[in-house]
Amino acid sequence: MIILRFPKSVTKKELTQALARLKSIHSDVYAINRERQDSIDVICDSDADDDKLLKMSGAIAVLRSQVSYILASRAYQNVGTDIPLSGHWQRGAAPLIIGGPCSVEDRVQVLEIAHAVHEAGADAFRGGAFKPRTSPYAFQGIGKKGYEYLAEVRAQTGLPVISEVMSAEQAHIASEYIDVLQVGARNMQNVPLLNALGKLSKPVLLKRGFSATTEELLLSAEYILRNGNRQVLLCERGIRTFETETRFTFDINAVPALKEKSHLPVLGDPSHATGKRNYVESISLAAIAAGADGLIIEVHTDPDSAISDGPQTVSVEAFARLVKKVKKVYALVKSMRRADDL
Amino acid sequence: MIILRFPKSVTKKELTQALARLKSIHSDVYAINRERQDSIDVICDSDADDDKLLKMSGAIAVLRSQVSYILASRAYQNVGTDIPLSGHWQRGAAPLIIGGPCSVEDRVQVLEIAHAVHEAGADAFRGGAFKPRTSPYAFQGIGKKGYEYLAEVRAQTGLPVISEVMSAEQAHIASEYIDVLQVGARNMQNVPLLNALGKLSKPVLLKRGFSATTEELLLSAEYILRNGNRQVLLCERGIRTFETETRFTFDINAVPALKEKSHLPVLGDPSHATGKRNYVESISLAAIAAGADGLIIEVHTDPDSAISDGPQTVSVEAFARLVKKVKKVYALVKSMRRADDL
Amino acid sequence: MIILRFPKSVTKKELTQALARLKSIHSDVYAINRERQDSIDVICDSDADDDKLLKMSGAIAVLRSQVSYILASRAYQNVGTDIPLSGHWQRGAAPLIIGGPCSVEDRVQVLEIAHAVHEAGADAFRGGAFKPRTSPYAFQGIGKKGYEYLAEVRAQTGLPVISEVMSAEQAHIASEYIDVLQVGARNMQNVPLLNALGKLSKPVLLKRGFSATTEELLLSAEYILRNGNRQVLLCERGIRTFETETRFTFDINAVPALKEKSHLPVLGDPSHATGKRNYVESISLAAIAAGADGLIIEVHTDPDSAISDGPQTVSVEAFARLVKKVKKVYALVKSMRRADDL
Amino acid sequence: MIILRFPKSVTKKELTQALARLKSIHSDVYAINRERQDSIDVICDSDADDDKLLKMSGAIAVLRSQVSYILASRAYQNVGTDIPLSGHWQRGAAPLIIGGPCSVEDRVQVLEIAHAVHEAGADAFRGGAFKPRTSPYAFQGIGKKGYEYLAEVRAQTGLPVISEVMSAEQAHIASEYIDVLQVGARNMQNVPLLNALGKLSKPVLLKRGFSATTEELLLSAEYILRNGNRQVLLCERGIRTFETETRFTFDINAVPALKEKSHLPVLGDPSHATGKRNYVESISLAAIAAGADGLIIEVHTDPDSAISDGPQTVSVEAFARLVKKVKKVYALVKSMRRADDL
Repeated sequence: MIILRFPKSVTKKELTQALARLKSIHSDVYAINRERQDSIDVICDSDADDDKLLKMSGAIAVLRSQVSYILASRAYQNVGTDIPLSGHWQRGAAPLIIGGPCSVEDRVQVLEIAHAVHEAGADAFRGGAFKPRTSPYAFQGIGKKGYEYLAEVRAQTGLPVISEVMSAEQAHIASEYIDVLQVGARNMQNVPLLNALGKLSKPVLLKRGFSATTEELLLSAEYILRNGNRQVLLCERGIRTFETETRFTFDINAVPALKEKSHLPVLGDPSHATGKRNYVESISLAAIAAGADGLIIEVHTDPDSAISDGPQTVSVEAFARLVKKVKKVYALVKSMRRADDL
Repeated sequence: MIILRFPKSVTKKELTQALARLKSIHSDVYAINRERQDSIDVICDSDADDDKLLKMSGAIAVLRSQVSYILASRAYQNVGTDIPLSGHWQRGAAPLIIGGPCSVEDRVQVLEIAHAVHEAGADAFRGGAFKPRTSPYAFQGIGKKGYEYLAEVRAQTGLPVISEVMSAEQAHIASEYIDVLQVGARNMQNVPLLNALGKLSKPVLLKRGFSATTEELLLSAEYILRNGNRQVLLCERGIRTFETETRFTFDINAVPALKEKSHLPVLGDPSHATGKRNYVESISLAAIAAGADGLIIEVHTDPDSAISDGPQTVSVEAFARLVKKVKKVYALVKSMRRADDL
Repeated sequence: MIILRFPKSVTKKELTQALARLKSIHSDVYAINRERQDSIDVICDSDADDDKLLKMSGAIAVLRSQVSYILASRAYQNVGTDIPLSGHWQRGAAPLIIGGPCSVEDRVQVLEIAHAVHEAGADAFRGGAFKPRTSPYAFQGIGKKGYEYLAEVRAQTGLPVISEVMSAEQAHIASEYIDVLQVGARNMQNVPLLNALGKLSKPVLLKRGFSATTEELLLSAEYILRNGNRQVLLCERGIRTFETETRFTFDINAVPALKEKSHLPVLGDPSHATGKRNYVESISLAAIAAGADGLIIEVHTDPDSAISDGPQTVSVEAFARLVKKVKKVYALVKSMRRADDL
Repeated sequence: MIILRFPKSVTKKELTQALARLKSIHSDVYAINRERQDSIDVICDSDADDDKLLKMSGAIAVLRSQVSYILASRAYQNVGTDIPLSGHWQRGAAPLIIGGPCSVEDRVQVLEIAHAVHEAGADAFRGGAFKPRTSPYAFQGIGKKGYEYLAEVRAQTGLPVISEVMSAEQAHIASEYIDVLQVGARNMQNVPLLNALGKLSKPVLLKRGFSATTEELLLSAEYILRNGNRQVLLCERGIRTFETETRFTFDINAVPALKEKSHLPVLGDPSHATGKRNYVESISLAAIAAGADGLIIEVHTDPDSAISDGPQTVSVEAFARLVKKVKKVYALVKSMRRADDL
């Protein structure tokens, strides 16, 4: 993949002519990124060499990347991407901790858990409104009503709210109520959904498919980025293996791999990755120690009565203890990393 | 899961009252199936025993199933489901053989391949119009135009045509042109899509996700069935494993497993499952020998120039040889199975 | 990898000098194969080009292989390897069918099953004497006594007998009683065992480890071949995946892959690969249709009372039916393959 | 599984009579554990109830376990097992850190690395003498000579030394030179080897097979324990999955799972689990944060020239930094765990 970098001052006419000349030398032009402050970037592919590309296009620089997820790569942007969450999280200062129930069950329940999760130290609140269940006879979520309750959570607690969307249509509805739109593991390669999210201006929490490689996760992120939306959070939530002791296998290797290859923030979801609440704290600490930027955790005021995912949901008390520990490990790991640089 | 069977003569009012009484004893009612000739079936779940259920509902029979995919199960329907394809395939008489290119590239190409595939003995024609690619910079298909060309293929050759859809919106467009709507592996658990397809009257070719269990495949089929569409073809297309010699691993065990558990037809896709054209014939014969009802195979008049999936695409000549062999193995296996029953 | 081919007439002194000169140009010499009728082959690796190698060594030909399992490869020997089993099997004429119980339980049981399996059409008899069980508290086999009973089976039925060995020591004991020594999946990379078997003159049935790639299987075979024993049968017995419906996943792709890459016979083990007797026939037919040379199947006169692996063991009657069907599919596939060559 | 606990004072005759009476009520007796200070424990299985077992055997207590690895379980022993390493490690006080090269190459190399690793803060030294390689043409280790050099390492540095054994024969040789005998992933279910190690008095480092479940790992440990050797260290070293970015996938979930189920120490091997030296530090910190008791890491004074596993081997400098960080994370996690108990 190639990026041709033009000065911000390039005119529309100049750009149109440049693209035409690129086509005349059999180059494929994929996308134009106008979001950078100091340049306009054209993503393309070509057999031509740098000199020819510069001459034909009038670009001021050529960037080449070995990987196809060029916009998600460190080659394109080395500094980590900030995700503005109404001032609730500052990358690098502290881990982003998202807590909440698997499903929004009713208004009273969700507000009660939200206040408790807020007090326990969460930075954002999660809750499922539309639920993609394996069985059509399992609880499918309360739907749009759930988004409305989540908006009320934000109004009462000030916490940004996160919920899953499964189609372009749901994404448009959700974006009126919700701060961060989540793509679930089953939809990581739902191309129409990714394209639709790329055209919205809300941050997207993109969960890794449970048999997707890290490269495929980055390529799914690239679908969103190339459509203009640069606010993507990656999330490792466990992959499918032969091991039956845990629901999935948390791929801890993916944390340093994704951090090395991409500037996008990386979160861990220890709830789904283990399926057992007893292991959630250990895996949370491990993810942070490995370099993750944050966590998304299923929390309930009464886990055993949760309508879905009860066995992997922790109590508010356990969550509060976990948050404290996670912050300490984050601070220690960060200070040791800084020491390396001195 | 429980099915309460009512006589075809039950009135709307009687049914409404029955459902109300079922709710009063804490039963969950999921769907009403009106498609059977001789009964109306209510799918529900309840802790009550048979006697109580019959008394409260006025139903004439209670069916109980251990599995959640009750409509897809042999417990519900033991005889294999027929999929009408304009007279092009009769279940049990011969294997259903679907051939065609990965992507519809242009009108001339698709018509040329279609005629060749027709002569080689195919029962239906496949071609991708909207392509769900891993990379946003890979060829994404020619879109709706592709559906139009496929309709022309049917007009010229008489073959039913099959193409993939990735969203409810695409499904509605496709259903005007296409005979069988395909759900790709990446969308096997795309719930809004499954629900939309369940409300259409076109057969659905449902591919197994590459890390989905056979139970999950049947539950995805159940989403379609419970919405009223009974025409679902299951397709094993390879699962993801540690083996790197082939693109995926064809799960041959899934063939007898699906046939044992479900009345839905089972197809094999040896092209994606191997990723290597050299292995396509062997795996085709194996799938049929194991009991598969048919195959879907990537064929091209010039495989090496195919715009996508070239390495796993066979030539028309190889396809013609394969069709002859597959039919012989199918006939032999069928005759031996019949002999068992004598 | 490189093979330097010398005429059969090369003297010991000439060979010693050749090896010394090869070392002087930094070549690594791994093994000398004296088993071919018309040549002596030196397996080595070197950066030197063909001309230099021929000049320095006095060899008459240089063979180069991309793969490390050079002796197991088609590049080294294109015609399939024959495994003499006292006239009980002739490669290409019919499938090799091995039947018998998981464990040799006692003398009466094993003789009874052996006679039944013989009558049902088996070419060889299997039975475990030393059993590598997952749990130390599970039945570990009756040990050496089992080998003695198997020798009695051969004396009474004329069938060659097969049993597993887990160490060099067991291999030496077994080779006094047993015709074919089996390496189980758990020992596929037990290097001291492979080396010991390479020095014996008995055929070895090498089972694929349940998470070994086909390349690793061929490299394990290469350990045996390079030690001088050329009689190796490869066996696909299922790999470990996320699917829980079956005990393992039979990797049907491995059948054409192994046949394409290697001249060694390839068997299938549908009993372990499925773990369910209902699926054994389907997978047997599939393996043969895909090109396998034979099968190894767990059979018992009373499967439900078998001391180990009962659920995947078929009855003698089911085995007899299966043998007949397998032979028909084998004959059909063979005749169609021959037609391709005309 | 059942354990019948007898007082230490039970006589041989009483025990023999007890076993005979247990057999008379169809109980299976598997092993007698005489290693506890205050009791003699008989491991058995039986359908009889507690009262009958106590009456028939004269035992003073009955312990029942749901799991088959009863001696390895927390039900049998809740306090963590100490592994005496000549005073080099005290469980709970600090992590056990083992470093050294993949292969012992020559005397000078191994002594040089050993001194460097010692200074960098390692508690023990590892080095392979007999190497189980996938290819027979890859370096197979320098053999027994390697054990001798390792003994010299201990003499010079005072560090306990660890090396792999692949057969009972190698185990007997190694136990004259080596402090901890390692079972590699490929031999985790090599039953004759496990049985042999169970009869030696050296600690065993048991690596998890790369497609073994944690339950199977504990059952392999049980083979060693039931033979009388109670000094087993478990080691997670990565499992095989579909992901190709890293050599294996470190199963971080296994750390809390093994700690919850067993009293045996749990180590992590981030070198093999990642295959990439860049990720070794992240995974080391993660393993410790998740509760691991220690680490085994491949270190070399010149990683790029290492004869095997170079890409996953860290430099001595990187190892020294890693040791410091690991100790800090261990101390923090330990202090937080203690705070939970207050």
